[in-house]
Amino acid sequence: MITCRHYREGVLEDETPFDPSEVAAARKAGTRVWLDAIEPTDEELKHLQDSFGLHQLSIEDSSRWGQRSKVEFYPEYVFVVSHGLKLDEGDELADSQVHLFARQGVYVITVRRKPVLDFEPAIKRMQGEQGMQHEGIGFLLYLLLDEIVDGYLDTIDRLEDLSDDIEERVSAEDAEAGTEGLAQDIFRLRQTVVRFRRLASPMREVLDRLMEAEGIVTPTLAPYYRDVLDHTIRVTELMDNIRDLLTAARELQLAQVSNRLNVVMKKVTSWGAIILLPTLIAGIYGMNFRHMPELNWKIGYPMALGIMAGAAFLLYRGFKKRDWL
Amino acid sequence: MITCRHYREGVLEDETPFDPSEVAAARKAGTRVWLDAIEPTDEELKHLQDSFGLHQLSIEDSSRWGQRSKVEFYPEYVFVVSHGLKLDEGDELADSQVHLFARQGVYVITVRRKPVLDFEPAIKRMQGEQGMQHEGIGFLLYLLLDEIVDGYLDTIDRLEDLSDDIEERVSAEDAEAGTEGLAQDIFRLRQTVVRFRRLASPMREVLDRLMEAEGIVTPTLAPYYRDVLDHTIRVTELMDNIRDLLTAARELQLAQVSNRLNVVMKKVTSWGAIILLPTLIAGIYGMNFRHMPELNWKIGYPMALGIMAGAAFLLYRGFKKRDWL
Amino acid sequence: MITCRHYREGVLEDETPFDPSEVAAARKAGTRVWLDAIEPTDEELKHLQDSFGLHQLSIEDSSRWGQRSKVEFYPEYVFVVSHGLKLDEGDELADSQVHLFARQGVYVITVRRKPVLDFEPAIKRMQGEQGMQHEGIGFLLYLLLDEIVDGYLDTIDRLEDLSDDIEERVSAEDAEAGTEGLAQDIFRLRQTVVRFRRLASPMREVLDRLMEAEGIVTPTLAPYYRDVLDHTIRVTELMDNIRDLLTAARELQLAQVSNRLNVVMKKVTSWGAIILLPTLIAGIYGMNFRHMPELNWKIGYPMALGIMAGAAFLLYRGFKKRDWL
Amino acid sequence: MITCRHYREGVLEDETPFDPSEVAAARKAGTRVWLDAIEPTDEELKHLQDSFGLHQLSIEDSSRWGQRSKVEFYPEYVFVVSHGLKLDEGDELADSQVHLFARQGVYVITVRRKPVLDFEPAIKRMQGEQGMQHEGIGFLLYLLLDEIVDGYLDTIDRLEDLSDDIEERVSAEDAEAGTEGLAQDIFRLRQTVVRFRRLASPMREVLDRLMEAEGIVTPTLAPYYRDVLDHTIRVTELMDNIRDLLTAARELQLAQVSNRLNVVMKKVTSWGAIILLPTLIAGIYGMNFRHMPELNWKIGYPMALGIMAGAAFLLYRGFKKRDWL
Amino acid sequence: MITCRHYREGVLEDETPFDPSEVAAARKAGTRVWLDAIEPTDEELKHLQDSFGLHQLSIEDSSRWGQRSKVEFYPEYVFVVSHGLKLDEGDELADSQVHLFARQGVYVITVRRKPVLDFEPAIKRMQGEQGMQHEGIGFLLYLLLDEIVDGYLDTIDRLEDLSDDIEERVSAEDAEAGTEGLAQDIFRLRQTVVRFRRLASPMREVLDRLMEAEGIVTPTLAPYYRDVLDHTIRVTELMDNIRDLLTAARELQLAQVSNRLNVVMKKVTSWGAIILLPTLIAGIYGMNFRHMPELNWKIGYPMALGIMAGAAFLLYRGFKKRDWL
Repeated sequence: MITCRHYREGVLEDETPFDPSEVAAARKAGTRVWLDAIEPTDEELKHLQDSFGLHQLSIEDSSRWGQRSKVEFYPEYVFVVSHGLKLDEGDELADSQVHLFARQGVYVITVRRKPVLDFEPAIKRMQGEQGMQHEGIGFLLYLLLDEIVDGYLDTIDRLEDLSDDIEERVSAEDAEAGTEGLAQDIFRLRQTVVRFRRLASPMREVLDRLMEAEGIVTPTLAPYYRDVLDHTIRVTELMDNIRDLLTAARELQLAQVSNRLNVVMKKVTSWGAIILLPTLIAGIYGMNFRHMPELNWKIGYPMALGIMAGAAFLLYRGFKKRDWL
Repeated sequence: MITCRHYREGVLEDETPFDPSEVAAARKAGTRVWLDAIEPTDEELKHLQDSFGLHQLSIEDSSRWGQRSKVEFYPEYVFVVSHGLKLDEGDELADSQVHLFARQGVYVITVRRKPVLDFEPAIKRMQGEQGMQHEGIGFLLYLLLDEIVDGYLDTIDRLEDLSDDIEERVSAEDAEAGTEGLAQDIFRLRQTVVRFRRLASPMREVLDRLMEAEGIVTPTLAPYYRDVLDHTIRVTELMDNIRDLLTAARELQLAQVSNRLNVVMKKVTSWGAIILLPTLIAGIYGMNFRHMPELNWKIGYPMALGIMAGAAFLLYRGFKKRDWL
Repeated sequence: MITCRHYREGVLEDETPFDPSEVAAARKAGTRVWLDAIEPTDEELKHLQDSFGLHQLSIEDSSRWGQRSKVEFYPEYVFVVSHGLKLDEGDELADSQVHLFARQGVYVITVRRKPVLDFEPAIKRMQGEQGMQHEGIGFLLYLLLDEIVDGYLDTIDRLEDLSDDIEERVSAEDAEAGTEGLAQDIFRLRQTVVRFRRLASPMREVLDRLMEAEGIVTPTLAPYYRDVLDHTIRVTELMDNIRDLLTAARELQLAQVSNRLNVVMKKVTSWGAIILLPTLIAGIYGMNFRHMPELNWKIGYPMALGIMAGAAFLLYRGFKKRDWL
Repeated sequence: MITCRHYREGVLEDETPFDPSEVAAARKAGTRVWLDAIEPTDEELKHLQDSFGLHQLSIEDSSRWGQRSKVEFYPEYVFVVSHGLKLDEGDELADSQVHLFARQGVYVITVRRKPVLDFEPAIKRMQGEQGMQHEGIGFLLYLLLDEIVDGYLDTIDRLEDLSDDIEERVSAEDAEAGTEGLAQDIFRLRQTVVRFRRLASPMREVLDRLMEAEGIVTPTLAPYYRDVLDHTIRVTELMDNIRDLLTAARELQLAQVSNRLNVVMKKVTSWGAIILLPTLIAGIYGMNFRHMPELNWKIGYPMALGIMAGAAFLLYRGFKKRDWL
Repeated sequence: MITCRHYREGVLEDETPFDPSEVAAARKAGTRVWLDAIEPTDEELKHLQDSFGLHQLSIEDSSRWGQRSKVEFYPEYVFVVSHGLKLDEGDELADSQVHLFARQGVYVITVRRKPVLDFEPAIKRMQGEQGMQHEGIGFLLYLLLDEIVDGYLDTIDRLEDLSDDIEERVSAEDAEAGTEGLAQDIFRLRQTVVRFRRLASPMREVLDRLMEAEGIVTPTLAPYYRDVLDHTIRVTELMDNIRDLLTAARELQLAQVSNRLNVVMKKVTSWGAIILLPTLIAGIYGMNFRHMPELNWKIGYPMALGIMAGAAFLLYRGFKKRDWL
């Protein structure tokens, strides 16, 4: 499904279905158009290619997915592949790839597939910012890229929350419960961070190259694009931060597991000694020697029990003192 | 065995055995030729060298193998060493080295050895793409390189499947079985990834240098070569991703082994106490003191058994509560 | 709250509330002004923007926080985001962001929010250094940046003290106590260092770019800015040093935990053998065979006890010798 | 001992003892000479310095050893320090440093010390390659450097064999034997690799700089030097490969040690239970209660033995099923 | 205390106390002077500043210490901060900071503080090398820097000895003793290496920048400075080597600790079984069943002892075979 929006005098009009003849008329009248293709079929893509003279290879890229974020400069237009990223309810990374074709003064074409990135906030801003109407296509492109990168910042915020959770759990980990779960949660969050980083970090180069190229980013727009670029840099830095934290958390968790093993081993030894020593005493008085005077004592039995209890208690106190129990 | 294909007016003709005089005729007529040598003997190589004026050193490179991927510019031709890579049925990396000599407007020579890389798909595309007939040798070279790099993407897909398997196994690893095998599988996959990376990553530089050099890559061909370059970059990034995942999986697996040791140690302690405490009680009533009133009680024996069972049960419940069992 | 200070003939006058008309008059008279906004409201920021023609985006940056340190060059002024850093009493990192707008020969505007960085020392130095009065805004900016970076050096000093503490504890760690706490303390200090580094290190680029840019840093001022730059480099190096130390400390601590486990296991074995061997002997003389001559000996019982004690003692000595106890 | 070889019309003549006057005559006649000093005394070096006007510092470098590979350009000659590397029978790295002085069109001087690198293969090639006689000194230098770098490739081959051995041992490590030796062998091989890398890797820069410099490497020689350079790059890459493999092997070995500890602990627990449970039963029937009906049963004793055997068997089967034994 | 040496016609005269008027006279006469301030007071520094027109900031640097090695170019002189490094008897790093001010053709000023670096060898060389008298200040500066960097090489030699010691201990570590000490020694040496590296490595940049700058390093001096630069590069490389070795040693040591734990655990199990099985047998014959025929056999008792000994021996041999004991 391809819809079309006309951008006249800095006002973004409502969307209409895509009609090539109308677009041709608009081009003649100098109106910029924004064509938005959601889950286009191959014919629709072919249609777009013919109407706007797009290169075979960039259309092929748009029918295949899983491309890395990149910008390519063709003689008549630029082609941007970008990834809208979001965490879903299960904190899994949802990747909404967006392809953008932009020709200064003429058109922006966006191709989206499921999960479809929401462009509503960008559309609202386009309708609102009257002062930028002369910037045309470059400003439209900025708003869309800004929308995408703002999504990165939201994702980072959530990832930071998740990593703070882990930091807390790992620091509070005196209790024995949940250790295995913790290692797995660290592993899963780290995987998410690695995937996010791989998808998000090439945006920096995309913006760098867009700013260097002539035509799209006018001097008036430069601070805006620099602002988006700045956000991508910050995203990368925060990512590194989270990765670092997760590494440290994992190491602390390993250290604690080792520590706990030590603690457990000491308990094994201590309780073993506390049970085995009385057993030895019981064994001694279970011997069948004819001449064992204690056996005939009236207080022999309570005495033996007393010795056992006393030995156990002394061991217990000794181990307690040395912090083995 | 050297076969020859003529590329006339954008049409690739069927292969014929290599005949130098025919090639010379074709050169005069301006027809481009593709010579394809599979497992050539030293004489055949010498033959090629003399017919096309190839440099001694590049022919020497072509008789020895194990070279890293590279491109070398000689005054009259370029020489490309590349590695076709594939995973065989045992998921072992199969390395099919391909050497390419290309002279703009005149010839492409390919030298292949066992395991021989399959060029059929590239040949099909050559016969199909009519629009590019004026691009000649550069386009032929692109198709061959694209074929090679597409093989990398297939390999990566398989490697990603294998690493997803490992990720699943490591995450599901509550069961105790298969732990040792897992560490070894991670090790083996990592070795494969390292080897793949070493062989595949120099292709990026090869393509970079081909694109910078004049003569081979015409402006019309540039997007095509950029596309291949893009694939090699993606391959490298996906490789890093897999390596990162494997590192994390290995660390999680180590953490789980440590965790499990803790669990086992707690069980040792718990069951030890549960068995040893009744043993102590049995030892007590096995003592030979004359004055042990319980021994004469009618209910002495069942009482003793009851105490043993009770002590064991209490311990069992206590350990269960503290999650030691 | 916005206050204003006039800087006339190298003398910094006392602060007055911000009055736009007065500032306009001062600008005409060639007096430089320093406007200092502490926790400004959005209206106050708007006010500043209108009076000094600041760009919408830099004002937006100043109302949002959590920006990374950066410098941005607008046609009429430079905009610097920087982070004053300090360790509070609990050795937590306190981040006092400071935004600076500077226009050569005209004004410096500082925006601070809680926790507010103290500028008193910088103000004292401004009033003191008479020789630099002709350097104007660039010198004011230097003093403020120097103040911020000096705070980094103080923080580093404290972090080095903390890491020396850990180094000592880890080296002295013969005693068994405090091991778990140690791992956690290393973890926490490392987190602080990572955060500090992330916030402090971009200052290097800020200073680099300020020095490269024309207008702000005059040749006379260059050594001063170079001095600040030098401090930021030193801060980064010392950070790396501390991180390295903490990594080493963590590893040593892990090695010690493993070592200690070995020691504990040897003790388990040793004491186990020392108790179990006499138990076996007691078991032997507890057997009910009719024909056990020792049982009838007068010295049978003391002999058995003697054998037990002797076996235990021999084992004890043996283990002691092999350093297992 | 210094010997001299004349290189006339592309033919390398037999060696004669070094005679300065003869060398001077040869220089006049335009014959190139190759002086080869093996373990020269200080006087011999002084002699060479005076005859050829070598700089004090490069002669000092030639009397001291342990220099890193480097190239230095003096106005009249180039000075190359290089390391011939070989693995001796104990697979220890043998370092044969070679110093080369070369002046285009005039001389090559080589200084070698024990263990002396063998130049025979290079001499053979010099006598063989008639086509290159006009390249003179640059070609001689190429042959010597190629000889050195070929030695690196041989060493790498051997190191790869050794690392493949370790890979196999680590993968086959189901057997318990040889574990400690394995860790040590990995350690030793890694040390060798690190040393090799440190000595071999600067050769890359040496060749880069030689190729950039004018005078030595003529266009005809460029492919030859590029070939050597290529080999050094390949050496570095293979080194990294081996290091990576060794790291992975070490980690796998650690994982296996941990795994095995788990296995051992489970066996301890299992066998402990299998022995201790019958012991408890024996203890129960060793109690001295008057009223224990089983004691009077005829089948009491075999029944007790049967219960013991049955309990042990049930435990054994249970543990076997859970893979603890 | 400031002393002064005149350097006339390549001869370094004996030291005299610093007398400004004398220095002024010497300057007029074209004699170069070397002023050497050991532990100067603030007034003495002020005195130097006024006499030679040194910049306030470089004098401030000279009164504070702990600066990183750096070179700063002022219009009239260069200012070098460097660190003389040595290992004291306890193998602790002793840091002797040296500040140098040099003005081509006029003066070198050195400022040293405790622990004072010894300049005697440099002074001897100055008095000896007659050939360089025309190089003046640049040559003096070279000798001082060479002295400092030679100290690095000595330190590295000692560090390599220490790390070889550790390598040997870690390789020989079959004996159980000294393990904990080893981990700590590795830790301490690593700290020393890290500190050394941090202080020594910036010297490379100092020399790079000195050689690039005009005025100080004349073409005649270039090989000498390059020689010093070469030494600093070698120092850095050797450092990395040692760090790498220490990392490997630490890892091997950890692996050995884990291995040894395995060995200990197997011994625990083995000895446990060897003691517990006879105990079980004793327990069986300690049961009070009326009908236990063996109890009445004459050979019952020796038979029981024999079974015990036999069981223990069989277990012992079995464990020995499997290498558990």
